[in-house]
Amino acid sequence: MTLHTPPPAAELVEEIEVRGHIVDSLLLPKILDRILQLGGSFEIRECTIGSRRVDQSYARVAVKAASQAALDEILADLVEHGATPVHMTDAVLAAADMAAAFPDRFYSTTNQATQVRVAGRWIDVDDQEMDCGIAFDPKAKSARCVAMLDVEPGMLIVTGHAGVRVTPLERQRGETLFGFMNSAVSSEKPKAVSLRAVAESVRAARAAGQKVLLVGGPAIIHTGSGQHVARLIEQGWVQTLFAGNALAVHDLEQAIYGTSLGVNISEGQSVDHGHEHHLRTINSVRRLGGIKNAIAAGLVKSGVMYEAYRNGVDMVLAGSIRDDGPLPEVVTDAVEAQRRMRESIKGVGFALMIATMLHSVATGNLLPAWVKVVCVDINPATLTKLSDRGSFQTVSLVTDVEPFLRSLAAELTGPAGGTP
Amino acid sequence: MTLHTPPPAAELVEEIEVRGHIVDSLLLPKILDRILQLGGSFEIRECTIGSRRVDQSYARVAVKAASQAALDEILADLVEHGATPVHMTDAVLAAADMAAAFPDRFYSTTNQATQVRVAGRWIDVDDQEMDCGIAFDPKAKSARCVAMLDVEPGMLIVTGHAGVRVTPLERQRGETLFGFMNSAVSSEKPKAVSLRAVAESVRAARAAGQKVLLVGGPAIIHTGSGQHVARLIEQGWVQTLFAGNALAVHDLEQAIYGTSLGVNISEGQSVDHGHEHHLRTINSVRRLGGIKNAIAAGLVKSGVMYEAYRNGVDMVLAGSIRDDGPLPEVVTDAVEAQRRMRESIKGVGFALMIATMLHSVATGNLLPAWVKVVCVDINPATLTKLSDRGSFQTVSLVTDVEPFLRSLAAELTGPAGGTP
Amino acid sequence: MTLHTPPPAAELVEEIEVRGHIVDSLLLPKILDRILQLGGSFEIRECTIGSRRVDQSYARVAVKAASQAALDEILADLVEHGATPVHMTDAVLAAADMAAAFPDRFYSTTNQATQVRVAGRWIDVDDQEMDCGIAFDPKAKSARCVAMLDVEPGMLIVTGHAGVRVTPLERQRGETLFGFMNSAVSSEKPKAVSLRAVAESVRAARAAGQKVLLVGGPAIIHTGSGQHVARLIEQGWVQTLFAGNALAVHDLEQAIYGTSLGVNISEGQSVDHGHEHHLRTINSVRRLGGIKNAIAAGLVKSGVMYEAYRNGVDMVLAGSIRDDGPLPEVVTDAVEAQRRMRESIKGVGFALMIATMLHSVATGNLLPAWVKVVCVDINPATLTKLSDRGSFQTVSLVTDVEPFLRSLAAELTGPAGGTP
Amino acid sequence: MTLHTPPPAAELVEEIEVRGHIVDSLLLPKILDRILQLGGSFEIRECTIGSRRVDQSYARVAVKAASQAALDEILADLVEHGATPVHMTDAVLAAADMAAAFPDRFYSTTNQATQVRVAGRWIDVDDQEMDCGIAFDPKAKSARCVAMLDVEPGMLIVTGHAGVRVTPLERQRGETLFGFMNSAVSSEKPKAVSLRAVAESVRAARAAGQKVLLVGGPAIIHTGSGQHVARLIEQGWVQTLFAGNALAVHDLEQAIYGTSLGVNISEGQSVDHGHEHHLRTINSVRRLGGIKNAIAAGLVKSGVMYEAYRNGVDMVLAGSIRDDGPLPEVVTDAVEAQRRMRESIKGVGFALMIATMLHSVATGNLLPAWVKVVCVDINPATLTKLSDRGSFQTVSLVTDVEPFLRSLAAELTGPAGGTP
Repeated sequence: MTLHTPPPAAELVEEIEVRGHIVDSLLLPKILDRILQLGGSFEIRECTIGSRRVDQSYARVAVKAASQAALDEILADLVEHGATPVHMTDAVLAAADMAAAFPDRFYSTTNQATQVRVAGRWIDVDDQEMDCGIAFDPKAKSARCVAMLDVEPGMLIVTGHAGVRVTPLERQRGETLFGFMNSAVSSEKPKAVSLRAVAESVRAARAAGQKVLLVGGPAIIHTGSGQHVARLIEQGWVQTLFAGNALAVHDLEQAIYGTSLGVNISEGQSVDHGHEHHLRTINSVRRLGGIKNAIAAGLVKSGVMYEAYRNGVDMVLAGSIRDDGPLPEVVTDAVEAQRRMRESIKGVGFALMIATMLHSVATGNLLPAWVKVVCVDINPATLTKLSDRGSFQTVSLVTDVEPFLRSLAAELTGPAGGTP
Repeated sequence: MTLHTPPPAAELVEEIEVRGHIVDSLLLPKILDRILQLGGSFEIRECTIGSRRVDQSYARVAVKAASQAALDEILADLVEHGATPVHMTDAVLAAADMAAAFPDRFYSTTNQATQVRVAGRWIDVDDQEMDCGIAFDPKAKSARCVAMLDVEPGMLIVTGHAGVRVTPLERQRGETLFGFMNSAVSSEKPKAVSLRAVAESVRAARAAGQKVLLVGGPAIIHTGSGQHVARLIEQGWVQTLFAGNALAVHDLEQAIYGTSLGVNISEGQSVDHGHEHHLRTINSVRRLGGIKNAIAAGLVKSGVMYEAYRNGVDMVLAGSIRDDGPLPEVVTDAVEAQRRMRESIKGVGFALMIATMLHSVATGNLLPAWVKVVCVDINPATLTKLSDRGSFQTVSLVTDVEPFLRSLAAELTGPAGGTP
Repeated sequence: MTLHTPPPAAELVEEIEVRGHIVDSLLLPKILDRILQLGGSFEIRECTIGSRRVDQSYARVAVKAASQAALDEILADLVEHGATPVHMTDAVLAAADMAAAFPDRFYSTTNQATQVRVAGRWIDVDDQEMDCGIAFDPKAKSARCVAMLDVEPGMLIVTGHAGVRVTPLERQRGETLFGFMNSAVSSEKPKAVSLRAVAESVRAARAAGQKVLLVGGPAIIHTGSGQHVARLIEQGWVQTLFAGNALAVHDLEQAIYGTSLGVNISEGQSVDHGHEHHLRTINSVRRLGGIKNAIAAGLVKSGVMYEAYRNGVDMVLAGSIRDDGPLPEVVTDAVEAQRRMRESIKGVGFALMIATMLHSVATGNLLPAWVKVVCVDINPATLTKLSDRGSFQTVSLVTDVEPFLRSLAAELTGPAGGTP
Repeated sequence: MTLHTPPPAAELVEEIEVRGHIVDSLLLPKILDRILQLGGSFEIRECTIGSRRVDQSYARVAVKAASQAALDEILADLVEHGATPVHMTDAVLAAADMAAAFPDRFYSTTNQATQVRVAGRWIDVDDQEMDCGIAFDPKAKSARCVAMLDVEPGMLIVTGHAGVRVTPLERQRGETLFGFMNSAVSSEKPKAVSLRAVAESVRAARAAGQKVLLVGGPAIIHTGSGQHVARLIEQGWVQTLFAGNALAVHDLEQAIYGTSLGVNISEGQSVDHGHEHHLRTINSVRRLGGIKNAIAAGLVKSGVMYEAYRNGVDMVLAGSIRDDGPLPEVVTDAVEAQRRMRESIKGVGFALMIATMLHSVATGNLLPAWVKVVCVDINPATLTKLSDRGSFQTVSLVTDVEPFLRSLAAELTGPAGGTP
């Protein structure tokens, strides 16, 4: 059998390898397609396709191009898609010439598992995060992702694509509940199944000793879902919480006045002068020195903030320009808030993002591809924007926040809820 | 005190009266504003404003204009806003000159309670429906709304605005749960309150001996909510059901194959060749002669259609051009389907419209203003379109269909559900 | 090299072939994946992959399963994905035993090009349409798609999957403007490019002697776009028009009163008593006997309907249960309307669907896969629903109808517009 | 005529006055309703209603309640709705006891024109902004709104509602183009009219010597609208620009690479390795020290940033946690960014907010009620959220950003555009 392309007149050749579910996960088709798109040609020199769905496959492909530059461009591209040159060279390192910016030809990271080759040895890159550079530490012989603002002069930064190896997470198969959800953003899906899938992912993360991260917007409180989140926290199902000033203020207003933006959550009525509750809440908490003090002083006796502090949840309240106040605990500097969030996601195995585009996109930027993410919003446009920017590990769930959280809390904190 | 406008040079005057919560329901302001907008002027001759919120108020206003034509136009307009001329004349009747069309100057109805004056006597108009004409029966001395297509030659049709009196339903105050929902289309509302309000409206309709109408779209089945609707029907909470071919087919597919458009509802998985289930369901039911026979033959043993037939629900399945099949019970002619729906809404006291724009708008067109309507859809744009076209008795609820119906079924069929 | 799966103990083997861009169009991966999913195994016996993007590839694969039933199920499935058994048998025909329903095991069609084998010869199936059966005419030796309701007793209907060959349209590559649009439903795309792509598709259809079909909803008139559509029709860019009663009525109201649902389009103001214009328009046109007569009588002198009648556009106005009136030209029976639409789509090469879910889905159901379709709506949820139901030839464009149609009319009827 | 409520047994009375279009602007009905809602009663002692729509009306109403506390609560409420006690007292001032928080009973501001009475004299409050306190300067005898964080110990802060007078902006009548737009969020409006209304508002602001503020999101660049905004700036139609890091980066990427997030705007194609352009743009601009330097260095030669710097536009780029980089000019601290925005809105007469919820809400929080605001977004949910939070001076326009800005630029920079 012939499985090759006719050779161009004069050409340069480099062999690459690719492993995994390379046919049905579309890895191999994509790689062959990229070679052709970028003007090269190929010859499949070895190809073993697994006979069962769990089996690994393997292909060795000769990539050909008319010039070294063309070949290099193709190889750089294929690396991002998970191919590895058979004959690897070391990564090229350049010392940073200034603070808070990379050298010009810096390698720009993805959120996929990455390795760099230094002195012939493959080193795993730590703190994997997209849109960063890779800094190599010659003493520790370690490599890690570093954000642009954290670059210090003299840091050794990987440049170009040589000596970099990416192992893309394989698209999940349709066999699991989680996999089922993993398709287009649509509200017309069986909802009970989606709920079970999320509950199972939460349990699986905890069973694996990983942290569960909740990223939440203020609609959680407006819709009357604060009690459900408080219960999840109280029962130990949330270890990390990212939110903004608004969620915290609405939750505290609910705890102090029983209203959210002046609306009584349990009766749905606007309360006289209720819109002032919002600002008075912030003022009172500021006067006491912060949320923690307000709890200690007995002003706040329930709610999401109350349970988060009582249960030692690792919390980052990030500021934004639309904040009233804000509360003293809010980190108003965006760069500082990113740094705190980056610290806090370490050890997170599952992230649930509820009704917040800003915090969801921000968190998605920081997470490596292998952390499962479920985004819940009633507005499909929000989820489309998130998935436009995100990677395929993010599952979108178009549903109403309150019944979703009510059911999730019932499932996880009920008799068959399991141990967090 | 002076409460009048200076008289124009030569002017014609007619007194009108208005009763009810005329200040705070904005009736009086609107009427004064309309007079000015239409080029007239006014003098408030008597005005008693109730001291408590439940008290009725009353105003008598002299309307002035420069010509009889201008005065007539103003009066015609004010009638629609609930004002009544103090000195009323009889309605002008004209015999229809052809079938299926009104005489040229026919009075076009609203969905508000209407009376016509014939021979000095006020007669209530039956079968109130918007966008109809009013036919007077000289033998029975009765009047009723008649659709354009149902006009027969010789029918006496009301023309012009003279002798017509409209009593607008007053905008509901914010005191009831139902009232709370009655505002802009927004997903950011406390959801548990909305649910309780709907359950109470259903119970109130039944307690008053009225029928409950469910208008449903196919997303009910896709989202796995068919079981909740079936339970509501089984327990006697639904007397009338309007839907299309799609809901019926998806429900029957679910009963026969356990899938909806080939997707297994309880596991969320696509079944092999499942997309054919849809068409095979229709074919099988057609071969048996219809849904009723399919139930009798034991092919269909559960679901919405099964419970609807078993419990004697009055059902109209209206056809549309996107139907596959359709099922034999589907009324494929739109005019005939409207007639059946018009028959079936008699006695309905509460209408719940779920995830269908076509059937919801169609039903809304037929209902008088005093029937409470709740529209549920996850897409606010659908609800905005409905309320653009509808009247203020329609409450919009932006939420996810499945958890909403699950909770409603739990509320109404649970231990504290009450008696239908 | 080895490219096979280990054989099960006892097994049945059948060879299939697949041709085209089988690797990068994902045809081959999908087929291999389906074999494994359905419990079979495979051996790739021949595989030639084209070296350039335009080259065809070819694969011959041995499919293996443990039983004849299992093998049949796999083969039936692969046929739908474009594979062809190397050793084909004839299609199995069964005479219809009743009217308006298929025999039990009928082959259910897709909208892809299909052939059936009768007496050893492959016959193209005419009138390709999804969710139909295939009727073979023994006299003419021809085959065509037939809708369930059009089945007559004695018709020879194809049953099972044997002797059926499907040639799936290949997913378009990203090289053309049209291809660029062909991705997820999102409003964040360069809009000027999309517009050019649509204009080019319209021109290409006309240059190829094909008809352009416009499927339109009433928002065309509300948004003030009626004039743009009228201009497109007048200049010969639209041959076929599918709409409902509402678009026609709003357009006629605009022509007669200068308003749409009582709103003055050019000034955006509500006109006094303007909401009555809607019903009076219908009544006046009914009194004259229809749209055509209203034009002849001089009542209607501009607009979409006016240009459509003047320019001999083939029009189907399909009724629905939410229609007021309706106008005499409206086909109120859904089944009859489907039949007329089915007739009218013959020769259509490009379909533009604007702001109507009902008519768009209905039309999409009737079109073969190779007719290009662009759906325009400002609401992404509508487009998501359409693409959930449709095939990949449908391009979704999230944009505002009025500026889109204004620009399209300017592009096509301007100096560089070209000849329709 | 009697226009009063029966007196309760023992009661306290206070007279209030209200002026303006008090009947048809619903001021008087609302005030009477509030009195009853809060448990009081009233007697209308004087009432003159203007005879023409432009005439002012006047009412003097005795408010009665059973206790001084009840009466105070009612009066405090009525003040916010525009009523003024006939016998006014001075405002109560309290010295701030700590920094960055108000004294406990601080008066919380609205965005309506406000006056405070000190030593018997009414003083206009400067820098009107909602959700602030009012600080009185005893030396300058002036008062101004002060944000919570800007409170300094010793500042004299107004507490309670006594001595505060609010003059609500009257709801606009339906006579202007701008007024027409001023209704529910819906995409089904005549679009050409909306566009003209915006253009006229821009011209009117400039003619009055006021600044035009543009608040923009990154979709401006993705949709290919950057060129239109650049043209508006170049021609002098924009004086102030609020945006985030993303808009600036996408615009600079467009200027440097011709792509936006790697997509070629003029051809709609993804460019190879284009996603890296985003990060490389930030890095290059950081290496040069900022946008201004990048322009000076010749790296950036077109686009929104280029024109903004060249034309001396007052710009605030506010940071957020989802920013990559960010660019050196971005104000990363939210509180500092709010302060800069607060400075920059002085003199703004018209604000156009395009496709950004975060910046739009933030800006809306800072603007007084009398600055006209138009929000444009293709997603009605975004606009609903904005109007839930905003006041009625905000007009929502559901449309596509690119054609809107293209048409606006054509209108304002064309031959009949006028002088900025």
